[in-house]
Amino acid sequence: MGVTLVLGGARSGKSTYAEGLLEQMPAPWGYIATAQAYDDEMTERIALHRSRRGAGWQTFDAPLALAATLDELPADLPILVDCLTLWLTNHLLADHDLAAEGAQLRAALARRAAPVVLVANEVGLGIVPDNALARRFRDAAGRLNQSLAAQAQRVVFVVAGLPMIVKDAP
Amino acid sequence: MGVTLVLGGARSGKSTYAEGLLEQMPAPWGYIATAQAYDDEMTERIALHRSRRGAGWQTFDAPLALAATLDELPADLPILVDCLTLWLTNHLLADHDLAAEGAQLRAALARRAAPVVLVANEVGLGIVPDNALARRFRDAAGRLNQSLAAQAQRVVFVVAGLPMIVKDAP
Amino acid sequence: MGVTLVLGGARSGKSTYAEGLLEQMPAPWGYIATAQAYDDEMTERIALHRSRRGAGWQTFDAPLALAATLDELPADLPILVDCLTLWLTNHLLADHDLAAEGAQLRAALARRAAPVVLVANEVGLGIVPDNALARRFRDAAGRLNQSLAAQAQRVVFVVAGLPMIVKDAP
Repeated sequence: MGVTLVLGGARSGKSTYAEGLLEQMPAPWGYIATAQAYDDEMTERIALHRSRRGAGWQTFDAPLALAATLDELPADLPILVDCLTLWLTNHLLADHDLAAEGAQLRAALARRAAPVVLVANEVGLGIVPDNALARRFRDAAGRLNQSLAAQAQRVVFVVAGLPMIVKDAP
Repeated sequence: MGVTLVLGGARSGKSTYAEGLLEQMPAPWGYIATAQAYDDEMTERIALHRSRRGAGWQTFDAPLALAATLDELPADLPILVDCLTLWLTNHLLADHDLAAEGAQLRAALARRAAPVVLVANEVGLGIVPDNALARRFRDAAGRLNQSLAAQAQRVVFVVAGLPMIVKDAP
Repeated sequence: MGVTLVLGGARSGKSTYAEGLLEQMPAPWGYIATAQAYDDEMTERIALHRSRRGAGWQTFDAPLALAATLDELPADLPILVDCLTLWLTNHLLADHDLAAEGAQLRAALARRAAPVVLVANEVGLGIVPDNALARRFRDAAGRLNQSLAAQAQRVVFVVAGLPMIVKDAP
């Protein structure tokens, strides 16, 4: 089944949709969380996501070392990565080479046999942001999404919890 | 025919598309306007929308009491609600319980036999907003859209005036 | 083949996709660039776009006079316009009549026999911008996209480099 990329806006239901894709397969499922709790708002959001997932889910934290975590997990474990946009933010704030990180991620994905579902935000459909960091992030997120969409077997754009199938390779 | 949810960005042509859906049925049609004229920009926009609609349209204002208005209108009147995003904004600014308001709206929709077309903005596809109120609004709007999309028979995402059918329940 | 409108977010891969549409036809292809290098960020972006295009492309600059440039180019030259959103920005900053400019553009497009591919940003899917100029721009961009989508034979919404066909007139 390979890689599925689930794209969507904030509060679009993309995480719930992505979890549903995994739960169609036999448990257990791996959940790689990339969120870092910088503040109360984020702590609350992480706890909410975690409480929603039931038995059968094994959670792993990878705010930065996503490729290494994918390499370490059992070869037959289906995995959900939620989400790439936070992972990219973490690397941006750490001033890492975003193109190199993207390349390592794609290499790790290519090494996995079991299904991987990637959740990512689409952030480029608003007005050009005022500040340069936000514009740099928007560019990096767009490039990452493009490169992963090219690699993925399946790309889904989620609107209001509903999937629009953008790519479904045979 | 039940509930149709028409989603789209600012100036995407979603209102015109939604009006066209109603105008395919026999007149009269009900138009529930949720806009409040806070400033000149909004006053002008409301007047423009009103002047575009021709004979056959009956306009009702419901900046807040949307569920009650839906209950009061004749059971066989097809209705357009334009738009949910302004209605949600009005409740947010009034510091109301947004989840409770959403639940009342869904209950009122479930009670109506005649078609209802709901127009709403998709606002979550840009960069994370700087201010907390905008983030809270974005979350609430996304949750409302998801819950209504689940209830609706038909969900349409409008891009540049053109419909993409996201859901079409049998 | 007429007019194709390629819509997408920032870094969505819309330019690359649009170039691919032209390159399916025999060379040469005309490239009308609308970008003006206000700052280093933009200068770099223009150079990057230009270096990506290979032999077979003839570049013309039209930051403002897009309709006139379309009229002057050989009648059988397939043309890519990249992008309408920057062209609209240039007219907005020059305080020109945006509706009149849009009308002139549509008239020039109607006069061309050879294929024209138009690239434009969708900018209305985020939170309402704080400043009035950004809101005015968002409205103008949305109206322009709607009017061109109505005129176009084909409209494509690009997400992460992948096309969603929104309109394909027979």
